[in-house]
Amino acid sequence: MDPTDAAACSIARTLDVVGEKWTFLILREVFRGVRRFDDVRVATGAPRQVLSERLASLVDRGILRREPYREPGQRPRHEYRLTDRGFDLYPILIAMLAWGDRHLPAPDGPALRAAHRDCGADVRIALRCEAGHEVAALRDVVPRPGPGARRAQTVAGSSGSRV
Amino acid sequence: MDPTDAAACSIARTLDVVGEKWTFLILREVFRGVRRFDDVRVATGAPRQVLSERLASLVDRGILRREPYREPGQRPRHEYRLTDRGFDLYPILIAMLAWGDRHLPAPDGPALRAAHRDCGADVRIALRCEAGHEVAALRDVVPRPGPGARRAQTVAGSSGSRV
Repeated sequence: MDPTDAAACSIARTLDVVGEKWTFLILREVFRGVRRFDDVRVATGAPRQVLSERLASLVDRGILRREPYREPGQRPRHEYRLTDRGFDLYPILIAMLAWGDRHLPAPDGPALRAAHRDCGADVRIALRCEAGHEVAALRDVVPRPGPGARRAQTVAGSSGSRV
Repeated sequence: MDPTDAAACSIARTLDVVGEKWTFLILREVFRGVRRFDDVRVATGAPRQVLSERLASLVDRGILRREPYREPGQRPRHEYRLTDRGFDLYPILIAMLAWGDRHLPAPDGPALRAAHRDCGADVRIALRCEAGHEVAALRDVVPRPGPGARRAQTVAGSSGSRV
């Protein structure tokens, strides 16, 4: 990929880790507390080989960790748990859930909800800026080049003065 | 995919529309105001054929719309703009940007920022529940089956009493 400002952004790097449908569906299951290979396989419908590869990749990238367990009379196996880094992906899944609920609603209502532990109401994404303001409308969020973009532009041959 | 509660959820339906790396990178460009085929191609590094397919799919699914334009002396072309439905994907991209900034930081700082229009500060994802509470910690968001899950379980042969 070219060293353009956009290609170097955090969205692209995030997608290198989780930018694939099965990966998100596997993570959804782990967030729901489904942690064992066969349970994740049944819940997602992922082919065995795909699931095996995706789980290995998520462990490699520090999103999941393997924890040993042993059922009586069985050989030792592993279950998969979220690392802190993996747990921080939760807002992405909540944002996907909200978009699907709104724009691709199921006839019988949502199958899965993200609920507030204290009161049980559905949790929604809100936006706040680092100066502490509530950002009420999506139109008030504007993309801007960051410091990493300047260098990328300079490397790519421009003057670096355009920000 | 089996009609399990989880498979029928809004995350899965959202991923049917946008669950692919190039698709998100194309959307990132359109959110940044890059709207023309060749500009998106250069900015993302997507192969021409992939870009062409992904754009057509995003138009089919009501995420982008094609708008004609004509440069002097050229044949008419189209540019791509977000529909309202497409614009609502913004929180997913902001959540990805935040995760990448935190967990896969670039050496020179972020290349792309999501800024508050009014004050210029970075916009972050916050969580609020529909009862109006601020949800301070991700640990306070718990996955719960919704009404659509009951029916899916009944269809799959269980009693429907487990919620």
